Amino acid sequence: MSAAGDFFYPIRSQKMKIGFVGLGKMGGNMVTRLMQAGHEMVVFAHEAEVVAEFANKGAVGAGSLAELVANLPSPSIVWLMVPSGAPTQQNLDDLSGLLDAGDIIIDGGNSDWRETQQRSAALAEKGIILLDCGTSGGVWGLENGYCLMTGGDAAATETLTPIFTDLAPQNGYLHCGPSGAGHFVKMVHNGIEYGMMQAYAEGFQIMQQAPFDIDLAAVSGVWRHGSVVRSWLLDLAELALREDPNLDKLEPYVSDSGEGRWTVETAIDLAVPAPVITAALFARFQSRDREAFGHKLLAALRNQFGGHAVKAKS
Amino acid sequence: MSAAGDFFYPIRSQKMKIGFVGLGKMGGNMVTRLMQAGHEMVVFAHEAEVVAEFANKGAVGAGSLAELVANLPSPSIVWLMVPSGAPTQQNLDDLSGLLDAGDIIIDGGNSDWRETQQRSAALAEKGIILLDCGTSGGVWGLENGYCLMTGGDAAATETLTPIFTDLAPQNGYLHCGPSGAGHFVKMVHNGIEYGMMQAYAEGFQIMQQAPFDIDLAAVSGVWRHGSVVRSWLLDLAELALREDPNLDKLEPYVSDSGEGRWTVETAIDLAVPAPVITAALFARFQSRDREAFGHKLLAALRNQFGGHAVKAKS
Amino acid sequence: MSAAGDFFYPIRSQKMKIGFVGLGKMGGNMVTRLMQAGHEMVVFAHEAEVVAEFANKGAVGAGSLAELVANLPSPSIVWLMVPSGAPTQQNLDDLSGLLDAGDIIIDGGNSDWRETQQRSAALAEKGIILLDCGTSGGVWGLENGYCLMTGGDAAATETLTPIFTDLAPQNGYLHCGPSGAGHFVKMVHNGIEYGMMQAYAEGFQIMQQAPFDIDLAAVSGVWRHGSVVRSWLLDLAELALREDPNLDKLEPYVSDSGEGRWTVETAIDLAVPAPVITAALFARFQSRDREAFGHKLLAALRNQFGGHAVKAKS
Amino acid sequence: MSAAGDFFYPIRSQKMKIGFVGLGKMGGNMVTRLMQAGHEMVVFAHEAEVVAEFANKGAVGAGSLAELVANLPSPSIVWLMVPSGAPTQQNLDDLSGLLDAGDIIIDGGNSDWRETQQRSAALAEKGIILLDCGTSGGVWGLENGYCLMTGGDAAATETLTPIFTDLAPQNGYLHCGPSGAGHFVKMVHNGIEYGMMQAYAEGFQIMQQAPFDIDLAAVSGVWRHGSVVRSWLLDLAELALREDPNLDKLEPYVSDSGEGRWTVETAIDLAVPAPVITAALFARFQSRDREAFGHKLLAALRNQFGGHAVKAKS
Repeated sequence: MSAAGDFFYPIRSQKMKIGFVGLGKMGGNMVTRLMQAGHEMVVFAHEAEVVAEFANKGAVGAGSLAELVANLPSPSIVWLMVPSGAPTQQNLDDLSGLLDAGDIIIDGGNSDWRETQQRSAALAEKGIILLDCGTSGGVWGLENGYCLMTGGDAAATETLTPIFTDLAPQNGYLHCGPSGAGHFVKMVHNGIEYGMMQAYAEGFQIMQQAPFDIDLAAVSGVWRHGSVVRSWLLDLAELALREDPNLDKLEPYVSDSGEGRWTVETAIDLAVPAPVITAALFARFQSRDREAFGHKLLAALRNQFGGHAVKAKS
Repeated sequence: MSAAGDFFYPIRSQKMKIGFVGLGKMGGNMVTRLMQAGHEMVVFAHEAEVVAEFANKGAVGAGSLAELVANLPSPSIVWLMVPSGAPTQQNLDDLSGLLDAGDIIIDGGNSDWRETQQRSAALAEKGIILLDCGTSGGVWGLENGYCLMTGGDAAATETLTPIFTDLAPQNGYLHCGPSGAGHFVKMVHNGIEYGMMQAYAEGFQIMQQAPFDIDLAAVSGVWRHGSVVRSWLLDLAELALREDPNLDKLEPYVSDSGEGRWTVETAIDLAVPAPVITAALFARFQSRDREAFGHKLLAALRNQFGGHAVKAKS
Repeated sequence: MSAAGDFFYPIRSQKMKIGFVGLGKMGGNMVTRLMQAGHEMVVFAHEAEVVAEFANKGAVGAGSLAELVANLPSPSIVWLMVPSGAPTQQNLDDLSGLLDAGDIIIDGGNSDWRETQQRSAALAEKGIILLDCGTSGGVWGLENGYCLMTGGDAAATETLTPIFTDLAPQNGYLHCGPSGAGHFVKMVHNGIEYGMMQAYAEGFQIMQQAPFDIDLAAVSGVWRHGSVVRSWLLDLAELALREDPNLDKLEPYVSDSGEGRWTVETAIDLAVPAPVITAALFARFQSRDREAFGHKLLAALRNQFGGHAVKAKS
Repeated sequence: MSAAGDFFYPIRSQKMKIGFVGLGKMGGNMVTRLMQAGHEMVVFAHEAEVVAEFANKGAVGAGSLAELVANLPSPSIVWLMVPSGAPTQQNLDDLSGLLDAGDIIIDGGNSDWRETQQRSAALAEKGIILLDCGTSGGVWGLENGYCLMTGGDAAATETLTPIFTDLAPQNGYLHCGPSGAGHFVKMVHNGIEYGMMQAYAEGFQIMQQAPFDIDLAAVSGVWRHGSVVRSWLLDLAELALREDPNLDKLEPYVSDSGEGRWTVETAIDLAVPAPVITAALFARFQSRDREAFGHKLLAALRNQFGGHAVKAKS
């Protein structure tokens, strides 16, 4: 197994045949990248037309999980790239009935590391190996490669090295530890991402409300050269601000997926103060809470003690 | 002078004649309470009809600051109860030209303690004594008395004891220290108030969104009896929630006055971490920021890296 | 059943006989208060000498849970007042084997409301009714009464009215809703308590580091009279500051129990921003984290980019 | 003048002769880089031996500000690179008496933008032009170039283009707006830097306390390749963690300079919520506050209401 911390992986000539479930924005690009690297892909997704599209590009299309598994050599390898929670659980349940001892499933989605630990233990009873793989890189991963953080059985991970190294850019793959460790590291990664994004968001809002006119796109551009805050997120900020300098086309509405929440829960479990990551999460909640009851209570209290005017609903 | 920390003030029989400038929600009630206690009041405000109203109740009405001063014995005492900032400064400038060495001004408003220190030093050059008096109690002070926190010259403060003790409930008056100390303590008082209010606001919002129906007014009521979180603010919360259980009549829009801001600035100057008071201040900012640029930037960044859907302006 | 929100409970003449498990700081005082009100108490705790002490005061002492149950009329009522988590679960498991359908257990401890819901559902399969009762008031409850927030079956709750109303001060008892609602409301209560305490903590630290000497005990005292921030916690602050004005005898080390953590987790589940309660929780974590790895990383980064001096371990 | 937002500057052949005051970590490297680019430097610092060192490398060493100015052509250009606050003010006061109308001073330090605006207005009365230049890049700037953000008179700025473009990497220089705008943008830059650093700090601490062993240096390494959180600060984190994987050699003690504080103050002035930047600032305060009075008050309150054990000073 490649030790955690290894820096350079050998270029593998070995080509593999693997199953891949889920052909969304992330999954579809990953399949494309793997086919470009010469791997043979058996693909399944609920949308038949998407499966057909990838079949046209050279993949083996499957009409069901069972058909996908039937098309794989033994031991079989299946990469899951579906939404976390119920969809992931359903696929694992179904695959559990289709696979044999020694087969490997990689959960490449953003699953909760605590659930991953439970799932791998349950599958291990049947001899099926569940690996977890945190996958970062977004829509840019097809071209740049994906940063991969894996967890689970070391020997099984080792056999998948050709896949991991072809998905990742050079040095962009790390086996982080036992089952759950990959999803744990990816969770923290996303928590940090929340904090960094919010730091930029606050800074740019301060500049946007400055007493003089500041060209925000130009500032994001210049900071990319030699400054301490240069980053890939800043590169993206420049792209966004050059397209729409005042972001007039956007609502100030920000979704969150599970990983920010789990990072805070995990921090609390470990008694680690995480004020920045938490503030970033709460900012997203706040962005969607246009009738915040808490704010109404503040207004009501001010009115009660001070007779302060309130803004009444019209 | 009564030492800081003294608990019981003697009941003063001495009745005084003082000037009072500003007859708003706070000032008007204070004049009423002082007249009820037997003091002679010379009052001035910019609204002639308000002055007339208090003249009808027994005050001496003045048409100008000069007329107010002309009606006072020497040494003169003038209580200012006007908005902080420019209005307070203007009145101090005008009084500076009308008063003599040995006269006393009390700034009972919510002035910035740093400005108070500068103003008292400037007035001291003419021999005029500026005292600062933080005043808490809101519209309930007329009946309950006002909590008073004073700063400035101890001997001058001592001569005003009849006024302070008649405005305050028993034990509700403290000379906190040199010039600025009264406004400093009042500033911190308000900072704490922000934090407490936000703590209740968060808690009640969590209960309002609970998976079962919780009668918020009833909860605020029961907590007033024997619980660790009982407080006067909670008493007011119950009043507000019994009037309008879901606060449907209110916009989630919360103003802030200067003192929360100054508390955070002072904390920063002193390198004191003040996360709760600051979070409470920011919650108020957020309540008024419906087109937050920072939130738009977050949405833009998510779209850039993940192709995540954004809410476009319709 | 008394409707949520009822304000005045009739004085009950009915005296009851109930079992009580756990005689610690909270439980012991509650038993004493119930005996003073004329109820017959059968008590059990692991410390035989504590059981003996209460037997001397008039309780029936039991050497085991089985003996406690054997001494109760049918239907039996058992109040649990033991630490949350494993000890509570163990007692419930044991009682489950000793009690019959129609018997009632009240969990008066600080259990996680999510566990309470699961436990009451499990016990309901045997016909045993689990009620939850959040209990506030600390060591002062013996004298002042306890603020009680109950959840669970309404009819069962109604039969216990004499107990609840004798434990609580007038109006200090509320049936909050279905199973878990009492612990939910108590959890939020404690979350608010964290926020309020931290608001005071920050304010007093700012005053302690002020550029002039401020008598903190005197300030806490004066604020109790007429100010907006008066509260029971402030009463306690004055007591503490009069005993030890600079708190020199204390380490800056603050424990937390589960309820602050659960409040934040619940806020996150409900997507409610709770920055103040969370900041208060993190302040406690921070107070115990003297070798914070995060702070070391900050120092390391500053050194890397700026050559800033670091404090090396000596 | 090059418009804000211009992306490519022409390579300037023009070589200039300028004065440079301050030869510390930042200033010294900047002088070296400018000399390497062919500019003639007249340097002054209080440490004569440092001046001598640069004289040995080809600069003109000056023994005083007066001597420095005497060695410059007219109009003179003087770059100040000294600590903000009093040292900067003193140098400006001294230069004000030595320079003539039309001369230019560049304040390249981390001055408060509000002071910069006042200073440039004061110097403008004598016809002296003060430009502000925020300078990022740390000790790496010598090799990588410095990211420069300037503010002030556009025509004067234009004449200095050869200097700015030789200090900066390509596209690493931006004229941000009128006087103060450069320091404003640099201030916000540093505020963002605080937030980003704290985001990493929290994430790495969570991983360090994870239930399994995570190789933090390896994680920082892998994230640099393809991940959303890749950044220059992360590059530095890997360097630090490879040198000292557990950072055992460091105290968890983090300094702050003025710019984080000013960012929060400015955010408050503009009513912009900045929870992440503020949390990052407070984390630094906390790291240095080992006897936090606020934490002691929390411990005291818990003891008062709950009889909870406190950690007494030994």
